[in-house]
Amino acid sequence: MSTPPTPDRPVFAAPFPGYEERVRESFLAQPFMHTIGARMTRVSPGEVEIVLAHQPSLTQQHGFTHGGVIGAVLDTACGYAALSLFPPEAGVLTVEFKVNFLAPGMGERFRFVGRVRKHGRTLTLVEADAWGVQADGREKLVATLTATMMTLMGRDDVRN
Amino acid sequence: MSTPPTPDRPVFAAPFPGYEERVRESFLAQPFMHTIGARMTRVSPGEVEIVLAHQPSLTQQHGFTHGGVIGAVLDTACGYAALSLFPPEAGVLTVEFKVNFLAPGMGERFRFVGRVRKHGRTLTLVEADAWGVQADGREKLVATLTATMMTLMGRDDVRN
Amino acid sequence: MSTPPTPDRPVFAAPFPGYEERVRESFLAQPFMHTIGARMTRVSPGEVEIVLAHQPSLTQQHGFTHGGVIGAVLDTACGYAALSLFPPEAGVLTVEFKVNFLAPGMGERFRFVGRVRKHGRTLTLVEADAWGVQADGREKLVATLTATMMTLMGRDDVRN
Amino acid sequence: MSTPPTPDRPVFAAPFPGYEERVRESFLAQPFMHTIGARMTRVSPGEVEIVLAHQPSLTQQHGFTHGGVIGAVLDTACGYAALSLFPPEAGVLTVEFKVNFLAPGMGERFRFVGRVRKHGRTLTLVEADAWGVQADGREKLVATLTATMMTLMGRDDVRN
Repeated sequence: MSTPPTPDRPVFAAPFPGYEERVRESFLAQPFMHTIGARMTRVSPGEVEIVLAHQPSLTQQHGFTHGGVIGAVLDTACGYAALSLFPPEAGVLTVEFKVNFLAPGMGERFRFVGRVRKHGRTLTLVEADAWGVQADGREKLVATLTATMMTLMGRDDVRN
Repeated sequence: MSTPPTPDRPVFAAPFPGYEERVRESFLAQPFMHTIGARMTRVSPGEVEIVLAHQPSLTQQHGFTHGGVIGAVLDTACGYAALSLFPPEAGVLTVEFKVNFLAPGMGERFRFVGRVRKHGRTLTLVEADAWGVQADGREKLVATLTATMMTLMGRDDVRN
Repeated sequence: MSTPPTPDRPVFAAPFPGYEERVRESFLAQPFMHTIGARMTRVSPGEVEIVLAHQPSLTQQHGFTHGGVIGAVLDTACGYAALSLFPPEAGVLTVEFKVNFLAPGMGERFRFVGRVRKHGRTLTLVEADAWGVQADGREKLVATLTATMMTLMGRDDVRN
Repeated sequence: MSTPPTPDRPVFAAPFPGYEERVRESFLAQPFMHTIGARMTRVSPGEVEIVLAHQPSLTQQHGFTHGGVIGAVLDTACGYAALSLFPPEAGVLTVEFKVNFLAPGMGERFRFVGRVRKHGRTLTLVEADAWGVQADGREKLVATLTATMMTLMGRDDVRN
């Protein structure tokens, strides 16, 4: 289920029929996402969801999921939320992101939602949240991120 | 070799004789740093260096090291740069970081330097740079990050 | 009208009966807000709205409202959104903020909404949007900001 | 005196002979900088310094200079540090900035130094520090900021 629309959140149209397949294929082509076992569970125009299981190999010194891992998946969710609005010949690049950590990385798994706030020709602003999900399904906000994504045109080396 | 001092960069004293050992042991206790093969190569008061080899398992869809990995190691460098100034009974927590990406994650290996800019009782500001290192030793700035770190006192669950 | 609740936005209770008066009095005690003519138009628990008229004295070199002014009012909206949840004896301090600019500062006036995302004992995360309002009432998102606010207790010099 | 070079700080060449005059003229064309009495005291390739006197009209509720004012002048210092490297026909736009506040805005005056860290064709990363200056000349770091600046070409409406 996508994030409900509100007056301050735009609704986007699909840029071309195959946008979802393109996003999913590019995500599957990221070895690091495969390394950590992240799965893309939902794609709609301007919004994607990624899920990651808690794994001891991804933790920091206190047994919580490493904040850097959470930041990395949030960044990835933002990149693909942006790419879902781009034309087929374009690639996406992260210019910057800021992440605020709100709670330790605790949960059976994590759910990351990235959602475009403003889609521009060159730059796109994306927001993303990371939720820690308990075994009983309850969720807690773990981190939130805002990112500037750049549209790359005519660059075969970085096309998604 | 530590970053040369300049008028706008403070010089810090070691908080207690065993500060370096404490930092190195905490770093070694981070499973995620072990998973990606990151090594802490230098610790001085307020500054640490971490090195990471380029590995296909850590890349994004174009074969460059994933920006999220670079952000994760930069965050870690900042956390330990801060911890190197903390008293033995304190732990460290990332409040937030912003990372700016300046070049694709290319290099035979990467060098990450985190350095405290302002050490406060509760909050500490740390800056970090990621350098891509070519086979011939030449370096290129790949990303730069600023982070707010929090000192945690009297918390056995998160002591470093 | 406050921002509609959604699953990812918390609803807050008033911390004490006089919270709104306290917020409004503190805002009125900010000479800089008076200097630029900003007015606080709405206060509810965890959310405030501020309005600012376009004025030539606040512009940059192209006649748009200066981004720094927009950032300053967004920061203020965040500070008071946080303070609206604090106990009477607490003060508020901005730790950091990031602002993303999405459109030139054009409009007859600007509307700034700050809203708490996560309220913690020491740190509170606040989000804020700046809208440029045309003469016909149409609005355009001009900038968005996330800020970390700190609760200050037992500090007479900075109580709000 | 410019910031001393170190291995992690680049040295830039002037983009054209009249770069300094162009920067100073654009700064003087910002009504908001005039409103608050900010003066540009130094321009070199990739670095500018701005000075602002403490004034009651620019304070927040505790009598310190408003953090938003400090952020606004830091942003301006970054914009002109970037513009000092741009070709004559280009304009500059702030994409985003993050500011970390390290101490209350106390001082007889404030000194802001913006310095380019990486100059790219489309995007430029700039860092800036704000120093509170006491009557005896002693300085204290008050805030630090990193900003992404965009080069605008062929836009008469936003040329600097």
